[in-house]
Amino acid sequence: MSDRLSAHVKPERLLARLQAMARIGATPRGGVNRQALSAEDAAAQAQLAAWGAERGLAASRDAAGNLFVRLAGARPGLAPVLSGSHLDSQPTGGRFDGVYGVLAAFEVLEAMRDAGFAPARAVEAVAWMNEEGSRFAPGMMGSAVFAGERPLQAVLDTRDADGVSVAEALAACEPALAHVPRRGLGGAVHAFVEAHIEQGPVLEREGMPVGVVTGIQGKHTFRVTVQGEAAHAGTSRRAERRDALLAATAMVQALAAVLHDQADVARFTVGRFEVSPNAPSVVASRAVFSIDLRHPDSATLRALGERVRPVCEAHAGPCEVSVERLSAADSLTFPDAMRARLASAARKLGIPHLALPSAAGHDARYLHAMCPAAMIFVPCRAGITHNEAEHAEPADLVAGTRVLADVLAGLAQEDAA
Amino acid sequence: MSDRLSAHVKPERLLARLQAMARIGATPRGGVNRQALSAEDAAAQAQLAAWGAERGLAASRDAAGNLFVRLAGARPGLAPVLSGSHLDSQPTGGRFDGVYGVLAAFEVLEAMRDAGFAPARAVEAVAWMNEEGSRFAPGMMGSAVFAGERPLQAVLDTRDADGVSVAEALAACEPALAHVPRRGLGGAVHAFVEAHIEQGPVLEREGMPVGVVTGIQGKHTFRVTVQGEAAHAGTSRRAERRDALLAATAMVQALAAVLHDQADVARFTVGRFEVSPNAPSVVASRAVFSIDLRHPDSATLRALGERVRPVCEAHAGPCEVSVERLSAADSLTFPDAMRARLASAARKLGIPHLALPSAAGHDARYLHAMCPAAMIFVPCRAGITHNEAEHAEPADLVAGTRVLADVLAGLAQEDAA
Repeated sequence: MSDRLSAHVKPERLLARLQAMARIGATPRGGVNRQALSAEDAAAQAQLAAWGAERGLAASRDAAGNLFVRLAGARPGLAPVLSGSHLDSQPTGGRFDGVYGVLAAFEVLEAMRDAGFAPARAVEAVAWMNEEGSRFAPGMMGSAVFAGERPLQAVLDTRDADGVSVAEALAACEPALAHVPRRGLGGAVHAFVEAHIEQGPVLEREGMPVGVVTGIQGKHTFRVTVQGEAAHAGTSRRAERRDALLAATAMVQALAAVLHDQADVARFTVGRFEVSPNAPSVVASRAVFSIDLRHPDSATLRALGERVRPVCEAHAGPCEVSVERLSAADSLTFPDAMRARLASAARKLGIPHLALPSAAGHDARYLHAMCPAAMIFVPCRAGITHNEAEHAEPADLVAGTRVLADVLAGLAQEDAA
Repeated sequence: MSDRLSAHVKPERLLARLQAMARIGATPRGGVNRQALSAEDAAAQAQLAAWGAERGLAASRDAAGNLFVRLAGARPGLAPVLSGSHLDSQPTGGRFDGVYGVLAAFEVLEAMRDAGFAPARAVEAVAWMNEEGSRFAPGMMGSAVFAGERPLQAVLDTRDADGVSVAEALAACEPALAHVPRRGLGGAVHAFVEAHIEQGPVLEREGMPVGVVTGIQGKHTFRVTVQGEAAHAGTSRRAERRDALLAATAMVQALAAVLHDQADVARFTVGRFEVSPNAPSVVASRAVFSIDLRHPDSATLRALGERVRPVCEAHAGPCEVSVERLSAADSLTFPDAMRARLASAARKLGIPHLALPSAAGHDARYLHAMCPAAMIFVPCRAGITHNEAEHAEPADLVAGTRVLADVLAGLAQEDAA
C-alpha cells in the first residue's frame, strides 16, 4: 500500500494550497509577513483547520498554540505519527519556509484519504507555534513546549518588542480559532518527520530534488545590552561620553573579527540592533543587539560561544555591558534508522537524493528529544531564504512530498501486525 | 523704566509654570517626552495660549506651527521684538531645554503687564515648532520657515519614522489649538533674544549664573543608508553575505576613528541607527544611521564633513551605501551690539556673567539670518541635557529672566522717540 500511496499525491492541489497560504500576509515584493501569533498567522491556522474539515480531518490545538489536523488510526491505543513544520514567517519572509512542511504533511493526509488508506496509527499534520522567533525570541516555542523542553509558563510570559506577551497574543488569536477544539499538551509520539526547504545552496548545486537530513547544526543565541548615558551631541565632549552605540558597534566589529574562521564554517550574525533614544542629536544611552552563533561541531560551537562575553566586555569602554545567553543547542544527529527509511523511500520512488546536514534550526530539533525524528529537504533557489525572493521548484516540492507520503505510510503501519 | 522692569519678574510664577509644563509629557524618570507635534506638544502650546488669554495677551499661530503670544505695542507701525525658544523635547528629554526660553519670555510679558509698562513695539513670546528634530529631521523647522531659510512645503512634506508627515501631524494638533487664530508667516522683526540652558558645563564650573552667547557652533548632518541582502543566519556563508549591519557598524567605527581630534573639540555622534528586518536570525538587508557633526571652526567643520562619504564608501564591503547631507550650517557670531546689550543689562543688575559660545544649535541661528539676534544662557547641572536628569537651579533661571526682561524692555522702546 505505502509504495502506491505516493501516487495519490496531487501536485496541483499541493501547489494551490501553497499559493493560497502565500496570500495570507503577502508582501508587495512577493514574500510573506506572517509573524507568530499575528492576525495573519491565526488566519493561516484557521485556513488549515478549514481544509481539514472539508475532508473530515479533525483539527485541534494545544495550550502552546500548536495546531494539529488528524487522520484517525484504526488502533487508537498506538501513538500517532506526526509530520509538519510551521506557518509563521520572518517579517520579510518567503513563501515556502515552514508552510511547505505543514502542507506537505497535509497533502499526505489527503492522499491517504484519496487512496482509502486506513492507517493503524493516527497520522497528524502539525503547525508548530512560533518557529521563527522574530517576534517572540527565542523561536521553536511550540515544539519546545510540546516536547517538554521548555515550561509552558515561561513561553507564555515572553514578550515582543511592543510588550505584548505570548499569552496575550494567543488570546488575540482566539476569535479566529475558537471553533477548533482544545487538546492536552504533548503525549506519546511514535515518530516525527519534517519536510522543509533546504535554505542553503547544496541540493540545487548538486541537482538533487531531495535531501535526507543527517542532523541539525548547533546554535547559541545571546542578547547583549550596552548601557551608556544620554548626552547632547553638540555639547558633550568625547572624553565625557558614555556612548552606548559607539561601544556596541565596536563589540559587533570585534566579535566578527574574533569569530571569523578561515574555512567559513562558523556562522556569526547580529540581525537585531536597537538604540535608545534613537535620536540624531542625542548620544545613545542604550543599545541592545542579538547574536546568533552556529557551528556544526558542538565542541567548537561551545568554545566560540565562550568568547562572546569577554570580547563584549573588552570593548565596552566607559559603558556597562551585560551578555545574556538565550539558548544553547548543541548539534544533533537524527537516528540512522529514520534516515535509512527516507533514503530507502526515495530509492524506491526513483527520486535522486543526497545526505546533508541542516545549517538552520528546525522544530525537528525538539521532537528529536522525544521520539525518532527525521527531516526531508527540497532545494531552494540559490539558497536564498528568510527573504521575500525565496523560491522552490514545484517538481521538487512534489518529490519531497512523495517521499514523505511513503515514509509516513510505513511508520503509520509499524507495530500494527 | 526698563531697569525697574526686571524687579517685576516673579520667581514663584516662573517656576510654577516650568513645573506645570514639566507635567505635560512627564516621564517616570523625571524628564519629559514632548516630541514635536505630538499630543503633548499641542497640549503645551494650548497651555501657553491659555496663560496668555488670562492676561489679555493674544495668541496666534502660523502655517509652520509656530505659536506667538503678543503684548501689543503703542506704535503698531514698528516691527515687534521677539523672544522665545521651543516647547518640543527629545524622546527622553529634560524639563528645561527649550521650555525655559519660552516661559522666560512669557514671564517678561507678565512683568511688563504687572509694571504697567506700555512698550512702543509689540513684544512677542514665541514657541518655535520642532527645534529638536528627533521626530521630524532636521530640527529647527519652525524658525527656519519663519526666517525664510526653508520652504514651508518642504517642511510640511517631511515624514517621521511612522510615515506621518508634518502636515498630517499639524492637522492632528488642530483640535487642541483650533481656538487660536492664524497669522501670516514671517514678517519684519526688530530683534530676537533667546534664553536657554547652556547644555554644557562651563557656567556651572565658573560659578556664573548668566552667559552671554558669542555665537553658535556649526553643524553638518547626514543620513547614511547601507543596502545589503537578507539571508538566513544559519545557512548563508560569510563569503556570500551582504550584511548591511556589519558594514554599517564598520562605518561608524571608522568614522569615529577618522573624525577623532586630539583636542576633543570636534563632535561626532551617531544617535540613530535602524536595521531591517531587525530579526535575530536574519542577516540585515538594510541599515540606516544618522551623523551629527559639529566644530566651532567652519572651515574645519567643512573639511571633516568632506571625509564622511569616502570613509563610508571605503567600509561598505559587498553592500551599497548612499550618504545624504541633510543640513550644513556654518558657525555664526551674534552681532556685537546685541551681545553688548546683554552684558550691559547683567552688569546693571549686578548679575555675574561670562561670554561663551554655544556648542548646541538653537532657533536663534535662523533668526540671526533675518534680524539682530542674541542668546542668554543659564547653567545646567554637570552639563547634562537631552536627558531626563537635566536640571537647572531656580536662582539661575530667575537671573537669566531678569537680564532678558531688561534687554527686551530696552529693545521694545528703541527708535520710539
